[in-house]
Amino acid sequence: MSNIRDVARLAGVSVATVSRALSNPEKVSDESLEKVHNAIAQVGYRPNMLARNFRSARAYAVVVLVPDIANPFYSLFIRALEDRAQQKGYAVLLGDTRGTPEREMDYIRRVETRLADGIVQLRPSSEKSQNNIPPDIPCVNACGCEYTTGPAIRIDNRAAAKTMVNYLLSLGHKRIGVISGLKDNPHAIDRLEGYKEALAEAGIPFEKDLIAEGDFTMWSGLNAAFQFCNMKVRPTAIFSMNDEMAIGAMQTLKNQGIRIPEDMSVTGFDDIAYSKYSDPSLTTISQPAEEMGKMAMDMLLKVIEGEPLSQRECVLPTEFIIRKSTGPGPGKK
Amino acid sequence: MSNIRDVARLAGVSVATVSRALSNPEKVSDESLEKVHNAIAQVGYRPNMLARNFRSARAYAVVVLVPDIANPFYSLFIRALEDRAQQKGYAVLLGDTRGTPEREMDYIRRVETRLADGIVQLRPSSEKSQNNIPPDIPCVNACGCEYTTGPAIRIDNRAAAKTMVNYLLSLGHKRIGVISGLKDNPHAIDRLEGYKEALAEAGIPFEKDLIAEGDFTMWSGLNAAFQFCNMKVRPTAIFSMNDEMAIGAMQTLKNQGIRIPEDMSVTGFDDIAYSKYSDPSLTTISQPAEEMGKMAMDMLLKVIEGEPLSQRECVLPTEFIIRKSTGPGPGKK
Repeated sequence: MSNIRDVARLAGVSVATVSRALSNPEKVSDESLEKVHNAIAQVGYRPNMLARNFRSARAYAVVVLVPDIANPFYSLFIRALEDRAQQKGYAVLLGDTRGTPEREMDYIRRVETRLADGIVQLRPSSEKSQNNIPPDIPCVNACGCEYTTGPAIRIDNRAAAKTMVNYLLSLGHKRIGVISGLKDNPHAIDRLEGYKEALAEAGIPFEKDLIAEGDFTMWSGLNAAFQFCNMKVRPTAIFSMNDEMAIGAMQTLKNQGIRIPEDMSVTGFDDIAYSKYSDPSLTTISQPAEEMGKMAMDMLLKVIEGEPLSQRECVLPTEFIIRKSTGPGPGKK
Repeated sequence: MSNIRDVARLAGVSVATVSRALSNPEKVSDESLEKVHNAIAQVGYRPNMLARNFRSARAYAVVVLVPDIANPFYSLFIRALEDRAQQKGYAVLLGDTRGTPEREMDYIRRVETRLADGIVQLRPSSEKSQNNIPPDIPCVNACGCEYTTGPAIRIDNRAAAKTMVNYLLSLGHKRIGVISGLKDNPHAIDRLEGYKEALAEAGIPFEKDLIAEGDFTMWSGLNAAFQFCNMKVRPTAIFSMNDEMAIGAMQTLKNQGIRIPEDMSVTGFDDIAYSKYSDPSLTTISQPAEEMGKMAMDMLLKVIEGEPLSQRECVLPTEFIIRKSTGPGPGKK
């Protein structure tokens, strides 16, 4: 492999000039710059960027901490984040944490030891649980909730859930089951608040038995739905806190001979690609995953560069999408 | 932030000893090592690993080039690869290339300029198309096909496709439509070979009209299926080259009033999570995505370390999974 001395020799300039041409081209005359670039192309020189990073104390890499890359919402987000990162000359280090604090710490240490410059956190985290990440580490929380501190991007989970439950109420449903995420998940907490608010405003008392706990996987939705099938008075609608659990739940309902939406309406959250292709297609809330990914990268770069943020928190709009999994309830039939 | 001198002072050793304790601990006495470790813990010293990497000329990072992270087969693979990488002290740089050579080159350059140590290539590539990656770059192709050169991990796409088509033939189907990937995709080529071989052995002539081209997305499967619906003599089974196109195709068939599997059987490839939850659930070929991810990382580390490989190519077994989207054809009804 050719080295910097080969380039200098061919260009007829000093090694220091080649070095400056690579790191501070504005300090080199146009004439020398052209000679250096031609020589680099001719000898096929590949500068050692690890050395540049060492000198600039910048890794040109960010870590994205994701609870589960196999969740399609996260993969869409990461695709957009990576796109923007590449435009800005940054690499994306994938930190699939499986929700364990130890794996998170391992990645946080990479930033502490300068192997990455900052973190995009995708674990929904509240004030208490975010404290894993030391305050001197540049970080953006991109799956924020109402109590997220620090630079954050989020949707209004409570309002979106309330919109969905209001829609079910308007269809004449009064007994609405919930398939929730794990009870201490900040998104599940916010979305449950929205459900309770909608019921309260409609004068319908909250019933604890109508909440079934899942963990955002299809399999957990499939299991949670049995709780509703086995009730003496079944709910006529299910508000699932994500699409995957809704897709799992629909399989249980169909296996039990419960027609969707004639006997029971089902709604999701996220608008993953499959929700258009489920049978019936799923009424859901669309999160702007790609917009969130781009915005998270831009915000993190500002934090890394020490630039002031115009907003500490961005709340992005969601879209309410009506498909075929919802229909009139007992009050409207 | 504390530095290496603070550690040396507190430990009562020289800066050189602290440095050796971090980079070559075997050269330091146990007694000094203990003093250094205690001092590091006490002052909260965080070594600059970028400096270590610079000295060792190793980035402790690998690039994974993936055509589309939103494809669930790839995300499962990457999750397993990242898991193994973390165990080995390596980071995974995500290179979502969207199939464009320019984006691939950008990541290859990261290895050339020492920001990463090697590449796991997930784009199915043949002898001709792999040449993007210079031969001196450590690389493992983990979505290989029959003509992949260099270290590779793959399944036997031809044999798996043949197994599936033989199964449809055994059910009494004689007119079997194919939803293919893009015609120049190496996996699509191998799988089509398997289809042709099965037909030939059963004495059924190959018909070009029975091949509809997709691009492995659900949307393309939805569109491709119209070709079969509009035929004067419809096929009685569809062999789709992945699950997502099969899921898209099933929506078209159902919308056209074609019952699955009574009027038409449908099969997929990959066994993504959704194929269990589609209606009907999908008969498919399971690829060992997680095993492939782990193996790719192990193989790449050997290439990076310059260790000899026991095999240049690993062909992993697939699993044939019969679900409810397939049933008897005209010959068996």
